[in-house]
Amino acid sequence: MGQTGESASSLSINAERLISDFEELRQIGRLPTGGLGRASFSPADGEAREWFFGRCADAGLTVRTDGIGNIMVSSPAIDPAIAGLAPVWAGSHIDAVPNGGAFDGPLGVLAALECLRRIHEEGIQLERPVQCVIYADEEGNYSHLLGSSALARGFTREELESMTGRDGDQFVETFAAVGGSVEDALGVTLAPGAVHATVELHIEQGPLLEQRNEQIGVVSGIVALGGGVVTFLGRADHAGTTPMRLRKDASIAAGALLVALPAVAAAVSERAVVTSGIIAVEPGASNVIPGSAQVTVDFREPDAEALEALEAGIIRVSESIAAEYGLTVEFDFGVPIAPSPMDEGIRAIISAAAEGRGLAWSALPSGAGHDSQNMATIAPTGMIFVPSIGGRSHCPEENTAWADVENGANVLLDTVIHLARRSL
Amino acid sequence: MGQTGESASSLSINAERLISDFEELRQIGRLPTGGLGRASFSPADGEAREWFFGRCADAGLTVRTDGIGNIMVSSPAIDPAIAGLAPVWAGSHIDAVPNGGAFDGPLGVLAALECLRRIHEEGIQLERPVQCVIYADEEGNYSHLLGSSALARGFTREELESMTGRDGDQFVETFAAVGGSVEDALGVTLAPGAVHATVELHIEQGPLLEQRNEQIGVVSGIVALGGGVVTFLGRADHAGTTPMRLRKDASIAAGALLVALPAVAAAVSERAVVTSGIIAVEPGASNVIPGSAQVTVDFREPDAEALEALEAGIIRVSESIAAEYGLTVEFDFGVPIAPSPMDEGIRAIISAAAEGRGLAWSALPSGAGHDSQNMATIAPTGMIFVPSIGGRSHCPEENTAWADVENGANVLLDTVIHLARRSL
Repeated sequence: MGQTGESASSLSINAERLISDFEELRQIGRLPTGGLGRASFSPADGEAREWFFGRCADAGLTVRTDGIGNIMVSSPAIDPAIAGLAPVWAGSHIDAVPNGGAFDGPLGVLAALECLRRIHEEGIQLERPVQCVIYADEEGNYSHLLGSSALARGFTREELESMTGRDGDQFVETFAAVGGSVEDALGVTLAPGAVHATVELHIEQGPLLEQRNEQIGVVSGIVALGGGVVTFLGRADHAGTTPMRLRKDASIAAGALLVALPAVAAAVSERAVVTSGIIAVEPGASNVIPGSAQVTVDFREPDAEALEALEAGIIRVSESIAAEYGLTVEFDFGVPIAPSPMDEGIRAIISAAAEGRGLAWSALPSGAGHDSQNMATIAPTGMIFVPSIGGRSHCPEENTAWADVENGANVLLDTVIHLARRSL
Repeated sequence: MGQTGESASSLSINAERLISDFEELRQIGRLPTGGLGRASFSPADGEAREWFFGRCADAGLTVRTDGIGNIMVSSPAIDPAIAGLAPVWAGSHIDAVPNGGAFDGPLGVLAALECLRRIHEEGIQLERPVQCVIYADEEGNYSHLLGSSALARGFTREELESMTGRDGDQFVETFAAVGGSVEDALGVTLAPGAVHATVELHIEQGPLLEQRNEQIGVVSGIVALGGGVVTFLGRADHAGTTPMRLRKDASIAAGALLVALPAVAAAVSERAVVTSGIIAVEPGASNVIPGSAQVTVDFREPDAEALEALEAGIIRVSESIAAEYGLTVEFDFGVPIAPSPMDEGIRAIISAAAEGRGLAWSALPSGAGHDSQNMATIAPTGMIFVPSIGGRSHCPEENTAWADVENGANVLLDTVIHLARRSL
């Protein structure tokens, strides 16, 4: 960042204030398990939003909520000459998966708020506005990455009306109960160029930074994602009266697939992952040989072509197993989600900021989905990772050291200041 | 049977009448699937009992229902000199598993009724009474082999009061609604010597007789049965952010166990069977690596010692798999059910009857449980199997050729006449 007249590193975030905010927010929706229960548009989410509005007001910042519930925070003290320019956005989300952790989302929001507060209170003069953003329903209570999807491509009325929450509630009804409307939700899609650039600070949710003893991950891109169900069909028979050699036991084929999947992934690349998170056998009685076995497959790879090879490998090994056991196999796979490479220019700014702060960093892909993959389709976008202790996420044990929180927030600060000062 | 003055084979069952009864009974509780919905003490079961009482009355036979709902049918024309002697029982059950088949149970009941009718209408003079028996709730809506368990060993009041049906109803309430009482149910246990011998005709429920092209199976015994749950414990992690080499995926260990079980059974004997009918992984989301995986094991073997070896083999291979994948494993196994050998003398009578009728037969174990395993603890007991088409059972496709039904009923007739004429 040494190229700028005033080194960005001369400004740092107030770690004590950031941690204090963090400790307050994590109490809202806290469960007896120690995890968070804060689904989008739930009472706990509403309480978290009210708390956030209060923190913004305390800092003298201006808040706007768009038609689908995304929140944008601005400094009212901005130079009128630049107020109309496309802003730099920094943000993440504050909703959580059921029994989720306190860091996934809130870290990026509160660090962005702290960045904006520092810029605002120091009166830093920039060439375009910086805004702190909360994307609604990142965790997909109603739809995966709801708020950023609405910004990047929009929804139809039919799509909004068909959305159902984890508790079986209709999105349109719950949204109306918190003051939202379908009409407003339809109108939030951003025009091209409306946002200059976006940056998201997030926990890694995996173990690599910790294992490498690095403080900063410069996200190279969000991996391609495929998924679906493999179903083996055999024959349900009596567990007591059918000799082993005469069985067509679908569960054994499913077992063989589970055992084979790690080698299928390894054959594609070191970064390829395949997971079977749900296994269901029918009829599902302890004394009946399973006539069918369903195995979900979630497979991810940074490269789109390699993802295709991964899917082909899963199909090939499943067919081979079915043939070996004399069963049939069926596949029901969805259309894969394309990989989202992060902006090269912003990656360079993030890694320079890390170096400027004396932090060890490396480039790594994000195996998880983020709002940044939507924002990357309409604006140059970057992501900063900080280490997750033990790689844990989406659970009460999710944790990140305060030193890493502070480092990540400072790299975010340097990055947004750089982006708001210079053309990319 | 040539040793008796009058060859038993000179008397045969009336196949047309037996099949007509069978076709009438199978309509009661018939589901749109073609399967039977006739749980014990359900309205359909009550309707089937009423129909059965009508058929007995038509034949001039006398019916008694005991305190737990077992039914005993006698001929009123019996010689008063032998009426007080311990009877020979032939019977089975008329209740069905959910969406069950029409042959499992009813075949043995209707064939026994037909045997008694023939003896009664021909005025055959025997040395002790023959009775046709329906055992209540063989399929365990409330308790596995309820009626014969009550006869052989009895229940405590607490046991009866704690029984719950598949629909969540209390046994004592449902039983009271059909006119039963706990007091009466407590008093049905048989005194030693109360029954002279019992015989049960049943479908094989497996494919062996069909494959061997044999008409009669002489059951050597009901196999020993063990069962329980194997639980692998790993670590739940994010499916996208956890590299393959750093996972502790419980589902892969479960898969390895499923694949290994056939070899575990084969190492014990050709007759050993192991089945995993229920598989459950937690937390059970497509994008979360399973942290735990539960696999039920149902394992059976004709020999008690071999069953112990089978259980030990399952434990050994599970521990080896857990060690290989760096997981832990837990076992929750019940106390095994001991094998029930059938009476040697009755086995010889059944095989002689099959030969007398010119039928191909062989000895084979029953992999399924039957009321005969309870009756074998209080009286010499035998079982006759007839072929199941395709080995199917407990499903709408359950079927047996009419010729095999007729053969089985005639072998049952010869056997009960022999048992009622001679001492064992």
